[in-house]
Amino acid sequence: MPPDGLFDDSADDTRTAIMEATYQALVEYGYADLTIQRIADEFGKSKSLLYHHHDGKDDLLVDFLEFILDHLEEGMTLCEGTRADERLRSFVGALAVPEDPESEEFAGIVVELRAQAVNDPDYRDHFTRSNRFFRDYIADIVRDGIEEGTFREVDPDRTASFLLTVANGAMGEYVATDRPDAARAVLDELDTYIEGRLLKEE
Amino acid sequence: MPPDGLFDDSADDTRTAIMEATYQALVEYGYADLTIQRIADEFGKSKSLLYHHHDGKDDLLVDFLEFILDHLEEGMTLCEGTRADERLRSFVGALAVPEDPESEEFAGIVVELRAQAVNDPDYRDHFTRSNRFFRDYIADIVRDGIEEGTFREVDPDRTASFLLTVANGAMGEYVATDRPDAARAVLDELDTYIEGRLLKEE
Repeated sequence: MPPDGLFDDSADDTRTAIMEATYQALVEYGYADLTIQRIADEFGKSKSLLYHHHDGKDDLLVDFLEFILDHLEEGMTLCEGTRADERLRSFVGALAVPEDPESEEFAGIVVELRAQAVNDPDYRDHFTRSNRFFRDYIADIVRDGIEEGTFREVDPDRTASFLLTVANGAMGEYVATDRPDAARAVLDELDTYIEGRLLKEE
Repeated sequence: MPPDGLFDDSADDTRTAIMEATYQALVEYGYADLTIQRIADEFGKSKSLLYHHHDGKDDLLVDFLEFILDHLEEGMTLCEGTRADERLRSFVGALAVPEDPESEEFAGIVVELRAQAVNDPDYRDHFTRSNRFFRDYIADIVRDGIEEGTFREVDPDRTASFLLTVANGAMGEYVATDRPDAARAVLDELDTYIEGRLLKEE
């Protein structure tokens, strides 16, 4: 995170260039101090071009979130491993605990923007859709595990809801508190959950 | 939530009255549109009194969070039940899924303010402290369960970190998405976790 190749088209494509400028401005200022002017400064063009495409800061930021989700839907790149349990650990772990400073910045942006969904239905619609996407993605891994015979016959959707909640909770705590040891404890207990609840006994 | 009796002293006590006005203003405007003026309007007094006590909006809001945490530390009232597993379900469930509109408003406020910790060290210090408090509180319930013989010999701190992460994640999803069925699925899977991982077999 940010997802691999997210801004690869930026040389040719105005929307991608706006999205990259939005990302840079979010990293630099955070949500509260972000303005269309600051995004325009990153973009190197006038505010009017941004207002031509978007009604304001929140409209642009929801579009930014949709841009990222579209990119992920085209080809998720967070998930490494071959066996289903490895893929689960890799995917949930990557969401839960950022592995480098860039991923940490990105997680902070997601947490800040998710909080806007409390009062803004457009953000809420987006996060409803993105949560569904991540949940379905995890459920598919669980289904693969059941089919390949490594997992018990659990309910894939219920399991996926639980795992996504752990990942979202851990990400939120990671960027909002100074307790990296707690994040490690959560991942350790997640391993135990996967072993005890999902993996068939050998 | 808001915790029982939080503003009970408001008739006599200026700080409590400021805290109650802050709460009402947060419910009405959310973090982004909150101003010292709006809190003063709820309070029915001039801004200058608020500035006498606080350096600005964020200073006041961190004080508001500390006020709530102090209240909880004096006597947590979220947790009903007698056996350790009932107390765990009751506590984590109350954090994870708001049971009435007031609790939902309160959860929304917590999620919005927690997002400020991404860029503001004072919020970060608070949420580090409050997460530690909740984690210790849950770990004590787990210890009680081990002592009373209902729980296995799990690591109380690791278990508590995991359960708090589930609760924080579920609360964040509840207030930021339209998926009440997913919240229910998370609580169901949490029950299964408590049964399979914590409870001793009969």
